[in-house]
Amino acid sequence: METFEHYLDKYAELAIRVGLNVQKDQTVVIMTPIACAEFVRKLTKKAYDAGAKDVVIDWDDDEVKALRMKHAPESTLREYPMWRANGMEEMARDGAAFLQIYAPNSDLLKDVDQERVAISSKTTATAREGFLKYLRSNQVNWLMVSYPTAEWSAKVFPELNEQDRIIKLWEQIFKLTRVDKADPLAAWNEHIALLTAKQDMLNTKKFKQLHFKGEGTDLYIELAAKHLWVAAGSESKAGTFFIPNIPTEEVFTMPARSGTNGIVRSTLPLSYQGSLIDGFSLRFENGRVVEATAEVGQEVLNKMLDMDEGARYLGEVALVPDDSPISNSGLIYYNTLFDENASCHIALGNSYPFTIDGGTQMSPEQLAENGYNKSLIHVDFMIGSADMSIDGLYADGTREPLFRKGNWA
Amino acid sequence: METFEHYLDKYAELAIRVGLNVQKDQTVVIMTPIACAEFVRKLTKKAYDAGAKDVVIDWDDDEVKALRMKHAPESTLREYPMWRANGMEEMARDGAAFLQIYAPNSDLLKDVDQERVAISSKTTATAREGFLKYLRSNQVNWLMVSYPTAEWSAKVFPELNEQDRIIKLWEQIFKLTRVDKADPLAAWNEHIALLTAKQDMLNTKKFKQLHFKGEGTDLYIELAAKHLWVAAGSESKAGTFFIPNIPTEEVFTMPARSGTNGIVRSTLPLSYQGSLIDGFSLRFENGRVVEATAEVGQEVLNKMLDMDEGARYLGEVALVPDDSPISNSGLIYYNTLFDENASCHIALGNSYPFTIDGGTQMSPEQLAENGYNKSLIHVDFMIGSADMSIDGLYADGTREPLFRKGNWA
Repeated sequence: METFEHYLDKYAELAIRVGLNVQKDQTVVIMTPIACAEFVRKLTKKAYDAGAKDVVIDWDDDEVKALRMKHAPESTLREYPMWRANGMEEMARDGAAFLQIYAPNSDLLKDVDQERVAISSKTTATAREGFLKYLRSNQVNWLMVSYPTAEWSAKVFPELNEQDRIIKLWEQIFKLTRVDKADPLAAWNEHIALLTAKQDMLNTKKFKQLHFKGEGTDLYIELAAKHLWVAAGSESKAGTFFIPNIPTEEVFTMPARSGTNGIVRSTLPLSYQGSLIDGFSLRFENGRVVEATAEVGQEVLNKMLDMDEGARYLGEVALVPDDSPISNSGLIYYNTLFDENASCHIALGNSYPFTIDGGTQMSPEQLAENGYNKSLIHVDFMIGSADMSIDGLYADGTREPLFRKGNWA
Repeated sequence: METFEHYLDKYAELAIRVGLNVQKDQTVVIMTPIACAEFVRKLTKKAYDAGAKDVVIDWDDDEVKALRMKHAPESTLREYPMWRANGMEEMARDGAAFLQIYAPNSDLLKDVDQERVAISSKTTATAREGFLKYLRSNQVNWLMVSYPTAEWSAKVFPELNEQDRIIKLWEQIFKLTRVDKADPLAAWNEHIALLTAKQDMLNTKKFKQLHFKGEGTDLYIELAAKHLWVAAGSESKAGTFFIPNIPTEEVFTMPARSGTNGIVRSTLPLSYQGSLIDGFSLRFENGRVVEATAEVGQEVLNKMLDMDEGARYLGEVALVPDDSPISNSGLIYYNTLFDENASCHIALGNSYPFTIDGGTQMSPEQLAENGYNKSLIHVDFMIGSADMSIDGLYADGTREPLFRKGNWA
């Protein structure tokens, strides 16, 4: 058993060398809560070791954000310091790499007026759209990783004491990101090869539709005609191969905007802007959510769907076998980066241009013609379970089993 | 005896209400190391309570900075993300208030090549000049306060254990900033009135020169013809009265750029960019340092003087009696904000435009004609002691005693 320091070091190395794949003379931007400072310093050193030209930190604090949501005048929530958004966009245009440490303390927003949270989220999303399109379309190499905070670990292990929670959560993270292997980088190469094989298999099939069937779910999702299945890694405009999420277990693609019909029931709670939405069902007609009911968080679910018109349409469908390391851990992480890799999922909101052939070169109009959905949100939620069946349907209506009892058939 | 929380709250209130004097609908920018997060959140809440429109935090981390100094390519040290500097300038132009929390961990720079530190400092100072001129000329309300970090308290109380050091340093700060008084705001009003009386007295005298005499010091400083003595507070362009430094015990003004002659010896060590300069003497001829010797830190002193031509000329002369609360505490704080308020001091580098009559309205050429010194640095160092005598000299050469044995005569 190696020391914690050893694993943390490996985790940072995995992020910089494999996930982000920092190139010589590249600027690296780290977007992070201040609570992750220790890890940020490790990443910074590793980035310079990898030849980074500069490391710029974009610090953030959820407590300060919550104070703003609670106490700033409402008009302020409609404003965003554009110099900050433009600065990020400028660095993206110049080919920087972006590493986001995802460690939200969303409990802080619990007692904030949901209307104010929605206004602020929309303002931020709109202001950062120019910057985020560089990431969404994989024009630059980017990465999202998580880092345990006291708040997060308390959600996953409420029964443990403060110190044990963090240790336990680190153990899980090291395991689920293969950092506990003797040679994590080699383990990742092997893992990427397996996911890529699934991706290639699905791309040769050229299914017209997927049919999901499970408890409370009977859903047909038409895929975009030019859809591309994507797994694990992508290539940036400059030709850098990177893995935008660590961990990653999914193979995903783009639904045709108007082609989803039927009903789907969530199988895991969804944490959205500090509030939990649970036991919810959505009914789709021609791609649009026409009915939405939740056992918990009905109001928040409605607010989410009302963000903009695109928030009622799908932007992603992803396949993850029930027999995956994250699912097998038997834990709910209340963190999309982990939970989405435990289960088949779909996302409401914005599509990824790189999930259709030629998409990153298309104009907004061309994207729309090809089934792309545009929205300020992209919210994944889990629909997979141990009893889920998925069929692939060809254009002529014939079916092929893809998943049986939650796993690849 | 009140709780620590009580005093910390009062300290934040003093900063927001008296020091910065936040106005309704003003944006407040807090520039701070991430180590001061707890205090930043308190200040943020107080700022909204005072009617602030928005609170923007500009986080910073000395460890990340040190990693950059050590490991970034040298060409990077000559670059600054201009979007960041321009953003700060934009907010200053729009009338924001700026609060800087001064808690440097300069030990981190100890083992960095001084040449690289100097390059980086110069780049940063040049990039931020447009922004800083708003503060230097008091166009906006601004404030500098300190916050104890583990590193700082270790310097002041090396003999104590880690926990006691911080407690002891907080006790000192609360005392020296009058936060321990029953009504700190009333105590400050009284203190400001006393300092303002000294300022007004000196302004009626219209001295031509000051003559400093002490151990190793025999220095004549000619004052700028239009010099204004300034104490405690200033008024921003928008008419807000603010106290830019907490604590403050000084009355200061502008020397005439070419009018300093003689020799001066430092009476306290100077911490400059992570290095200590101690026991140093400077010889001036017609305003310019022509000879500089230090018992400790000769190389760093040379680097500082070579920053630019203005670094060899004085930009400020300040009077502080030896019988001041900070001096009476008998401690060296290794922090200019405290040490400069314990002792008479002079500063090498940039002058403050508001220390000559009409200076904030003058063009750079007009400022130069009136004795203003321009430099990227402004470094205060202490020259006062219990044996210092200061005379004021009128234009006709007659003398008036100002200080005897370190205190007001």
